[in-house]
Amino acid sequence: MKPPAPRRRVTIVDVARHAQVSTTAVSKVLRNAYGASPEMRAKVRRAIDELGYRPHAGARGLRGQTYTIGVMLPDIRNPFFPEVLDGITQALEDTEYQVLLGPGCNGEKAEARVTEAMIDRGMDGLILVAPVSSRTRLEHVASAVPTVVVGRHGSSPGYDAVVNDDIEGASLVVGHLAGLGHRRIAHIEHHETDPTRLAEMPNARRADGYRQAMRALGLAEWIDVVSTSYTQEGGYRGAKELLERPQRPTAVFAGADVVAMGVLDAVAEAGLSVPDDISVAGYDNTTFAAFGLISLTSVDQAGHEIGRNAARLVLERITDRHTPSVQVSLAPTLVPRRTTARPPE
Amino acid sequence: MKPPAPRRRVTIVDVARHAQVSTTAVSKVLRNAYGASPEMRAKVRRAIDELGYRPHAGARGLRGQTYTIGVMLPDIRNPFFPEVLDGITQALEDTEYQVLLGPGCNGEKAEARVTEAMIDRGMDGLILVAPVSSRTRLEHVASAVPTVVVGRHGSSPGYDAVVNDDIEGASLVVGHLAGLGHRRIAHIEHHETDPTRLAEMPNARRADGYRQAMRALGLAEWIDVVSTSYTQEGGYRGAKELLERPQRPTAVFAGADVVAMGVLDAVAEAGLSVPDDISVAGYDNTTFAAFGLISLTSVDQAGHEIGRNAARLVLERITDRHTPSVQVSLAPTLVPRRTTARPPE
Repeated sequence: MKPPAPRRRVTIVDVARHAQVSTTAVSKVLRNAYGASPEMRAKVRRAIDELGYRPHAGARGLRGQTYTIGVMLPDIRNPFFPEVLDGITQALEDTEYQVLLGPGCNGEKAEARVTEAMIDRGMDGLILVAPVSSRTRLEHVASAVPTVVVGRHGSSPGYDAVVNDDIEGASLVVGHLAGLGHRRIAHIEHHETDPTRLAEMPNARRADGYRQAMRALGLAEWIDVVSTSYTQEGGYRGAKELLERPQRPTAVFAGADVVAMGVLDAVAEAGLSVPDDISVAGYDNTTFAAFGLISLTSVDQAGHEIGRNAARLVLERITDRHTPSVQVSLAPTLVPRRTTARPPE
Repeated sequence: MKPPAPRRRVTIVDVARHAQVSTTAVSKVLRNAYGASPEMRAKVRRAIDELGYRPHAGARGLRGQTYTIGVMLPDIRNPFFPEVLDGITQALEDTEYQVLLGPGCNGEKAEARVTEAMIDRGMDGLILVAPVSSRTRLEHVASAVPTVVVGRHGSSPGYDAVVNDDIEGASLVVGHLAGLGHRRIAHIEHHETDPTRLAEMPNARRADGYRQAMRALGLAEWIDVVSTSYTQEGGYRGAKELLERPQRPTAVFAGADVVAMGVLDAVAEAGLSVPDDISVAGYDNTTFAAFGLISLTSVDQAGHEIGRNAARLVLERITDRHTPSVQVSLAPTLVPRRTTARPPE
């Protein structure tokens, strides 16, 4: 292959002129072989060959856009994240942008690897979903590429943020359970020690919201938090611990639906029934919660809307990187189902 | 920024020599900011600055590798696919390769868009999981980039394939149910009309395997197949139809665990109990099936091993694109759980 010649690079505009079609038509042929007529495709392909145009995203990356949005997901198994992803892909559907996912990020090291890889591949913008990396690290990423952070509270001049009001969501759950007559309401949180993450992560906010709501309702003496992780296994371990208390709670607020799955498992294993012996609530309103046989009370944080907002913001940032940073906070709603009821007499 | 100078491009080898470290160390610094000591990073960064090396995957893409493997997943909600993905990422963990996922592929058009986008971005190899595209289309992709197809039966000289023996898996389920005393065993399949897909898709193979096994066991007269889709909704609709039969089946073999979810929903809604009134089995042995409250009999098709094999093959193909194509077929195993039992008297 010859090295790049010093002459002006052939652009999509040259191809369109040469083929006597619109640039949109060229772009259509380049992006989506199934979207253009055979005649149009033949015309454009001929012009490409004659001019030696290279429709290569990597090559475009050297000069400008690759039309790629990188989305980093922490855990493809948590059924909440597909909701966010659907919102993102739907918002980008009619654009030139392709979403590529960086999977399997669990921890700062993996996040660093994935974000570096995305920057290195010239992606135009990143959407980082519930990242655990330090603020410094997030700002470093945002300084390299337009970035929207989903689920992290606390604002930064470097990136936009889309969050759910997790304090309010937790308060809705506690209020619902207290309204049913529960006082011994326990919470299973995702263990967190880093001070920034304690201030910014959704899990830490939900635990805070739980404590605040318990106090506001005069239930401070019943505050009982078990620290495990936002996984099914974490819910199982947390519930086992709670069920061994001398006086066990009458209700468990699991910080995420995936945690509630493990709680339901442990409760069944202990020979107890939900909600007769113990009420269980989750957070995220996943398809699992809505599943008829489970019918889990949960908090809907509008994952789809979160995704749509994140996509909109990242596109705005790509167009004008020096726009002041924006924080969008979405209000959660409670979805009561069959796993919560009055406490046993 | 200056246009590329006509002199020889600075390579990672030059950087290593200049910094007096190994190329592995340079690569470590380039790939994973958290994996190298601060001293090493400072040394390498200095060499990079002094030589003007551009560690840009897009730039490398013009000359050769981008160290990116594109993985196309049909449906991020189906809990089977994370297993395959885990196998892929684990196999690539200690390599230079980064996995990027193309999400939301549902249908030929979306698959064309994603595969074009991946090729256009200079990815080194593709792993296509359960694609629905035509053979011609798959061969077109494989002619552009080393490709491994997961889950499609039928061989091609153009790409490698990793499959599960779906005929055998279906036979295991039917044998298990017949062994418990069931005769009226129905099957819910994913609707398929395209002749190639009828021969190659795992769903079509499972339906074939069901029919073959029913015949082999002398149960041909009870063959009863409902065509919906491999989704929870498809399972729900399929089960509703089966439950309205004048004589309803005593067992339902759902073609995938996600389908069984919908079946369980419909059965509960009809006021029937599993397995006392009706046995239900799935396929894929997902975490959902293993979930204690569900405890679904299923077929383990070793998703993790499928992923590991696919990653190994795509790396081999990247190294030597002209290697003869390989088909790997993995044997499934039955995992009997609580949703299957003797039929009602």
